[in-house]
Parts: sequence; C-alpha cells; structure tokens
Amino acid sequence: MTDSRFYRREGPFSLAQLAEISGGSLSDATMAGRMITDVAPLYRAAADDISFLDNRKYVQAFEACGAGACVVHPELAEMAPAGMGLIVTLEPYRAYAMIAHAFYPQSRTVADVSSHAVIDPTAKIGPGCRIEAGAVIAAGVEVGARCHIGANAVLREGVVMGDDCTIGSNATISYAILGNKVWIHAGAAIGQDGFGFAMGPKGHLKVPQLGRVIIQDDVEIGANTTIDRGAGPDTVIGEGCRIDNLVQIGHNVELGRGCVLVAQVGVSGSTRFADFVVAGGQSGITGHLKIGAGARIGAQSGVMRDVPAGQTVIGSPAVPAKEHWRQIGMLERLAKKHGA
Amino acid sequence: MTDSRFYRREGPFSLAQLAEISGGSLSDATMAGRMITDVAPLYRAAADDISFLDNRKYVQAFEACGAGACVVHPELAEMAPAGMGLIVTLEPYRAYAMIAHAFYPQSRTVADVSSHAVIDPTAKIGPGCRIEAGAVIAAGVEVGARCHIGANAVLREGVVMGDDCTIGSNATISYAILGNKVWIHAGAAIGQDGFGFAMGPKGHLKVPQLGRVIIQDDVEIGANTTIDRGAGPDTVIGEGCRIDNLVQIGHNVELGRGCVLVAQVGVSGSTRFADFVVAGGQSGITGHLKIGAGARIGAQSGVMRDVPAGQTVIGSPAVPAKEHWRQIGMLERLAKKHGA
Amino acid sequence: MTDSRFYRREGPFSLAQLAEISGGSLSDATMAGRMITDVAPLYRAAADDISFLDNRKYVQAFEACGAGACVVHPELAEMAPAGMGLIVTLEPYRAYAMIAHAFYPQSRTVADVSSHAVIDPTAKIGPGCRIEAGAVIAAGVEVGARCHIGANAVLREGVVMGDDCTIGSNATISYAILGNKVWIHAGAAIGQDGFGFAMGPKGHLKVPQLGRVIIQDDVEIGANTTIDRGAGPDTVIGEGCRIDNLVQIGHNVELGRGCVLVAQVGVSGSTRFADFVVAGGQSGITGHLKIGAGARIGAQSGVMRDVPAGQTVIGSPAVPAKEHWRQIGMLERLAKKHGA
Repeated sequence: MTDSRFYRREGPFSLAQLAEISGGSLSDATMAGRMITDVAPLYRAAADDISFLDNRKYVQAFEACGAGACVVHPELAEMAPAGMGLIVTLEPYRAYAMIAHAFYPQSRTVADVSSHAVIDPTAKIGPGCRIEAGAVIAAGVEVGARCHIGANAVLREGVVMGDDCTIGSNATISYAILGNKVWIHAGAAIGQDGFGFAMGPKGHLKVPQLGRVIIQDDVEIGANTTIDRGAGPDTVIGEGCRIDNLVQIGHNVELGRGCVLVAQVGVSGSTRFADFVVAGGQSGITGHLKIGAGARIGAQSGVMRDVPAGQTVIGSPAVPAKEHWRQIGMLERLAKKHGA
Repeated sequence: MTDSRFYRREGPFSLAQLAEISGGSLSDATMAGRMITDVAPLYRAAADDISFLDNRKYVQAFEACGAGACVVHPELAEMAPAGMGLIVTLEPYRAYAMIAHAFYPQSRTVADVSSHAVIDPTAKIGPGCRIEAGAVIAAGVEVGARCHIGANAVLREGVVMGDDCTIGSNATISYAILGNKVWIHAGAAIGQDGFGFAMGPKGHLKVPQLGRVIIQDDVEIGANTTIDRGAGPDTVIGEGCRIDNLVQIGHNVELGRGCVLVAQVGVSGSTRFADFVVAGGQSGITGHLKIGAGARIGAQSGVMRDVPAGQTVIGSPAVPAKEHWRQIGMLERLAKKHGA
Repeated sequence: MTDSRFYRREGPFSLAQLAEISGGSLSDATMAGRMITDVAPLYRAAADDISFLDNRKYVQAFEACGAGACVVHPELAEMAPAGMGLIVTLEPYRAYAMIAHAFYPQSRTVADVSSHAVIDPTAKIGPGCRIEAGAVIAAGVEVGARCHIGANAVLREGVVMGDDCTIGSNATISYAILGNKVWIHAGAAIGQDGFGFAMGPKGHLKVPQLGRVIIQDDVEIGANTTIDRGAGPDTVIGEGCRIDNLVQIGHNVELGRGCVLVAQVGVSGSTRFADFVVAGGQSGITGHLKIGAGARIGAQSGVMRDVPAGQTVIGSPAVPAKEHWRQIGMLERLAKKHGA
C-alpha cells in the first residue's frame, strides 16, 4: 500500500481490465471479474493487489506470494501459487508499468504561477504551466504549455523548452533548447561551459564555449547530472534517452535515440553514441570516439577505442565481453597456481 | 588558530578537564593544571594548543611538535617530545573529537524564520526552528523542533522530519520521512524518481516510482549526493549511517545501521547492506545483492556478487582481498618476466 | 554560426588582425586583407569563417573544409585545401582561443543588484556587481568588485571573495576565502563539513571541521563539484587550477598551481598535489599522499602511493604508465594463449 501522504490511487480494476491495459492475456478466464485495488511488491502483496515477476532472483518470493494477481512471463507462470490470477506476457516489466500507470496516473500539471517566482517580463510562458516559488526565469526564455518548473529552479537567458516539460527543484538550465516531455530532475546543471582551455606551463587559457545543449523529446535526466554545452558544435541528447543521476556529459557529445546511461557515467567531449547504446554505472568513455548502435558498455568500464554496433565491451581498458571474461578467468587460475 | 570569521571558541580548559572530557588518562599528573586554549594540527600547534596523533604517517610531525599537549595511543606515547602533556587513550581520534567538541560545541539553532522563506500554510513547523531566506516548504510538510533549513533548500509536498535536523542550502527533499538528527548537506537530492523503466527497441516506458525514502536517526548525507525513492518498497538509510559527497543510492536500496559510504560510491537498485558495512570511494555495487554485516568494500571496487559478513573485497570485479592482492602481485611479476 | 539567442559577436577582423591577435603567422601575406566574420568547427566552417585543427583525428575534415581560414600547426599546414588562409603556430588551440575571445569577448558584468536577492545588511558588496534574483548573501560576507552572483546561489556567513568572481546558479559557498577571477559553476558545493568522524562499533562520532577552503586567483570549478573545508588545516586550491564537473575534493587537500582535474575525479583527505598535476576523468587518489609537480594520472586510475614529479601513472592500483601497458599487453597475450 502506498503512502497516502505522497500518492493518490485510481481504481479498482478487474483483472480483465488490467489484462487489456497491459496487453497481456489472462491465463484463467474465470478470474476476469476479480477486483484489484493496488500494485505491490511480491513480498508484501495481498489478495487485492497485483504484483509482477521479472527477475529470476525473486522466484522464491513469487512462489510464496499472497498477491491476488501477478504479471509473469509464460516460462515462469507454472511456478505461481494456487489461486493467483496471472496476466501472462513476454514483457512482464513493461506490462506492470502500464498497470501501475493506470493505478497512479502521472498527475496533470495544475496551472499555477507562484507569486514568489521571479519571471522576467520578456519571458514567454505557455498556458497551463505550474511555476513554483523561488523559480527564476530570465530574459528571453520561452516555456511551452503545461510545463512544471520546480521551486528554486533557474532557467537562464534565452532557454527554450517545448510542452509538458518538468524541471526539478534547484536545477539550472542555460544555453539550451529542449523539446517536449523533457524531464530534468532536481539539481541537474545543464548548459554550463565545457571544460575547454588551452593548457600551458604559464597557465591555462579558457576557450570560449559557443554552442548549446539540444535535448530532444521524451528525455529524462537524473538528479545532479551535468551536461556541458557545445564548444562550437552543440551537445545533443537524442529522443527518448534515459540518463541517471550524477552523470557527466562533456561538450559536443552527441547521444542518439534511446540511449541509457546509468548513474555516475562520464562521457568525454566530442564522443558520439548511435541509437540505443547502454552504458553501465560508473563507466567512462574517452573523448572523440564513436560508439555504434546498440552497443553495451559494462559498469565501471573505461572505453578508449571506438565500439562497433551491437558489441558489448567490459573492463578498463574495455575489451569485448568474451575477451574480458577470459582475461578475468585466466587471472584467477594463474593466481591460484602461482600464489604463495 | 581557527578563523574567527567562521568559528567561536569555548575554553580554555585544563589538561585535567580535557582528560576527563575525552575519557583518556593524563600521563603526567603534575601537568593537570596546564591550561589549553585551542585545538590545532600537529604541524602548527603551539604551547597552549592540544593536538592528536592518529596516523603513523605523522610520527615525525609529532616528534617535532610544539603543542602543549597531545592525544596519543599508548604505543606511540614514548615518541613525544619532552615537556609535551599527553592524554593517552586507545582511541585517540575519538578522544580528540570529544575535546574539539568542547572547544567548538555545535552551535544551537537560533529560532528564526526568515520572511523570505516561502512556507505553505498547511506545513507544520516545530518550535525553535531556523528557516533561512529562499527556503521553500510545500504543502503538508512536517518539520520537528530545532531544525535548521538552509537558504534555498526545498522540502517538497508531504515530507516529514523529526527534531534537530539540518538541511543544507540548495538541497531538495521529496517523498521522504526523516528521523531525528539527520544532517543533509548542500545540494543533495533526496527522493526523486528511481531509474525505472521497461526498456524496449521502440522506446523506454517509465515505471511509476511509488515508494519513499526513509532516513533513520543520526544520519549524515553529503553534498550533492542523490538518493532515489523506492519503486514500491522504500529506500531505507539505517540509523547512524555516514554518506559522503556525490554518492548515488538507487531505488529500494536498504542500508543497515552505521554504514559508511565514501565519496562517489554508487549502489544500484534493491541491494541491501547489513550493519556497519564500509564502502570505499568510487566503489560500485550492482543491484539486488546482499552485503553482510561489517563487510568492507575497497575503493573503486566493482561488486557483482553477494559479500559475506565480515569479508573485505577489492577489485573490479571484486574478489576477497587476499585473492586480489595475489592477482596484482602475480601480474606484476609476470609483466616483469615477459615484458619487452 | 552561433545562436544569436545566446551569443553576441564582435568583428569582422582581417586575417592580418587575427594573426596578430593570436600570435601566429599568416602563411600567405596576400591574404592579409581577407575578412573573417566568425569562428566555426571544421565541418561547418564557410568562406568567411575561421576554424582550427588541433587533433590529428580531424585531418580529413580539415582537408575537406570550406573555411576561409584555419589555425594550424606547421607540420599539418601542407594538408590544407587550396585557397584556405592559414595562421600557423606551434599552439593552434591556444591561438584559436585568443581569436574566439576576440569574436566573443567575455561580457562585462553589468552592475545590477536584483530586488529579489536577499542580502544581509552586514554584508559588503563591491562596486559593479551583478547579483541575481534569489541569491542569498549572509551576514559578514564580503564580495569584491564586478562579481556576478547567479540566481539562487548562496553565500553563507563570513565568505570572502575578491574581484571579478562568478558564482553559478544554485551553488553554495561556505567557510571559504576566494581570490580574484574565481569562477564557480552551477550547483557546486564548497566549504561543507569534511567526512570526519571517529568510527566505532557503537556509532561514529563526528569530528568538528574547523578549517576553511582557500581558493586562489583564476580558478575554475565545475558544476556540482564538491570541495570540503579543512578539518583544522585548510583545503587549498592553487592559482590557475581547472576543476571539471562532479569532482570531489576532501578535507585538507592542497592543490598546487595550474592543476587540472577532469570530471568525476575524487581526491581523498589530506593529499597534496604539487603544481600542474593532471588527473584524468574518474581517477581516485587515496588520502595523505604526495603527487609531484607535473605528474599525470590516467583516467579511472586508483592512486595508492606517492607519485614522483613528472611521472605518469595508470591503472587501479596505479603503476607507472610503461608498466601498466606491459601488464595489459601480457594479459591480452596470455588470455589468447590460455583461453578456451
């Protein structure tokens, strides 16, 4: 049961409704009318809750689960306890997400511009926006419809955003053009100067940073993440990217569509990701590289060379996954043999 | 000597008083009346200062030190210069901390609610709070007694905190329940959505994040650290934990009591730490793991498997410390032998 | 062409003028009068733009480039397309920086103290400052001439800064003394308590942090970077240092002049860097070490021992570069030989 301090629930829904919502199929039609009032994790779901099984680590919890219903992959369906309603689908996590959205729809932005926000008279604010106390919106900014600007967020001179964007509290956005449905979490810093200077023994000379940050539609950017603007070219975040907390994106970086960057990743300047690249937590990618479509970079890896499309690389320096595990295995064996 | 711009000092105290305050014993009773006016580092302590020796790296500085007194482990006491007063204890750093608290007691919060703070009328603020300019406290928030809310900090809807909490400037707290004596430093972002979505080639579908962040009593959380709220379960930070700057804690993570996470650590979703786990700087812990009580994780390690209680692991991927050092040693020897 | 939403351009300049500004020499005197209106990257520079070639990776783009002129190293000059004006210099990136500064001079701070800033009556603000909405300047703060304090930045009690400093939006500065021309980017947290406590099985006892952060002249500090104040000694950032985003600097650390710390570096407490040390992205340096002048630390390296002046170290644990690459090479060869 969610905490009513923070969440408001819709429903209840019948299992038939939830099967339709999720695109899964109900394994036992006689249960179509069973009413479900909430979503819950396996370990605490009760008779009127629906849960989901997506990770084999939790099969035991599934077998012991008291949920009235569960979303599950066909291969694991037979391990369900007796009496549990089953919505079967090849993508249980996605199906669960759709059900959870039904119970907890994203609350529509309630139009409300706080009298404690500071909005420059030259800024244009679209209809239906919520702008909270302490937000500062500078000259020439353009905000689309139904955007939500959190308390103490700062939109600096000239920033543009489309419709349905959310900017978290204490975030700072500058030199940036955002599409629609961009969600930037608390404390993120977008658009500041890249790390550009000519090094020299008598001191480092700053190089003017003259580009922007372009963020395409439907992008999520995590808390306290930093994205530098381009040095001349732009820094570009492609449509549908998901960027976690505390990630660093250097100047001129281009991410294709649907890339996923887990927390604390660092991408150095001018590197390009094609579409749907996944970078594991704390991995680092050197500057001026090309990472091919669908490539996967293991957590903590250090990528120093281009990565072909579809390849998985791991290690620091990163090598193809198979090679990495062979090195690790050999190291273990040798250490056992040669060890004192 | 501390900078009087920033610090106000109590005292002086006699060595007898300081021995009592620290729980140590004075090695020479004839010095009981020696008056000490301040604490100072070894390299600059003068005749009316007290210092401490806790790290053998600084024995030389100790031998040359001009401090009027020093807190020291019995094993190192004999290296003291002549005439130095000695407070001997098995825990010199802890004893020093108590002495430093005597000279520089944590200043009591002076009740003062700035007229430049924005506090929703439905928020409840306990007695004795200091709420600085630009702080934004949203609807339904409950703040206990004697809390200090820094300038431009944001407490979002429904957040609850106990007594004697400190929230740093520009920190953002949402979807969170805090105990007593919780100290969150500047810029931390607590309670935003976890990194949850169902990945897919046509786009990634966000999964509603429906839990909270529970922070138990006496927890310290560093500057610009990020802690995501639970996806359904809660994210839990146990009593007495110490979390450094720029740490990432994923959704559903549970830390036991007294865990120590050094700067830039990342803990992925649903991992559980038992009590008194120590994670070294920049280490990363994969999701869904169990780390046993008292386990120690080396700096920069990448933990991919459960760690039993009491074990020290190092490396990426992390292995037991002994095995790690054997691998490192062997690698060095082989590289020398086979190297060009 | 830069986006006029964000940038205003000076010029045009003749090639003769640009050669003089940059300290380079024009390779063909007949082109001295050619007028240049803007800087641009190689791939999109047109006949009235000037570009630069600094990285051999981009020689192809240089050969195909339509720029009216280019700054280039003498060794690469002969690869220029016919008709391109060439400014030849041993330091093309530095020369380009000077040219870019001519077209886009750093805008002078326009004196303007927002009525929405909150400035304690005891604070002293120098002439010519720009202080934006929502900035909070506490008691006893001293700000020099022509400083720019961004929206929602916080200067806590007693902070001092010299002339021509820039503090980014949502940054928090406390317990700090800043020189002239210090540039701190958005969201940085400077001066909070270091991570100091006496660990113990019954709980960790906080050690009062009694020092300051001293930031010398001409230092740049990246977005969301954290620098803890000293525990007793000060934390010191030397003149001319360049610190990137999301870097962690522990208490008592001292950086010499001109050090460069790339994004996500972590430096543990009491470590000292001599002058012009370079630390690559995501590298970590253990506490209480000495890193010699001009030393270079590879990206993601973990430094556990002192590093002599001028040495390059790589790896985790870090070893001299030559040794590191020998280990990596041997590991690859052995894995191929012993692999399945």
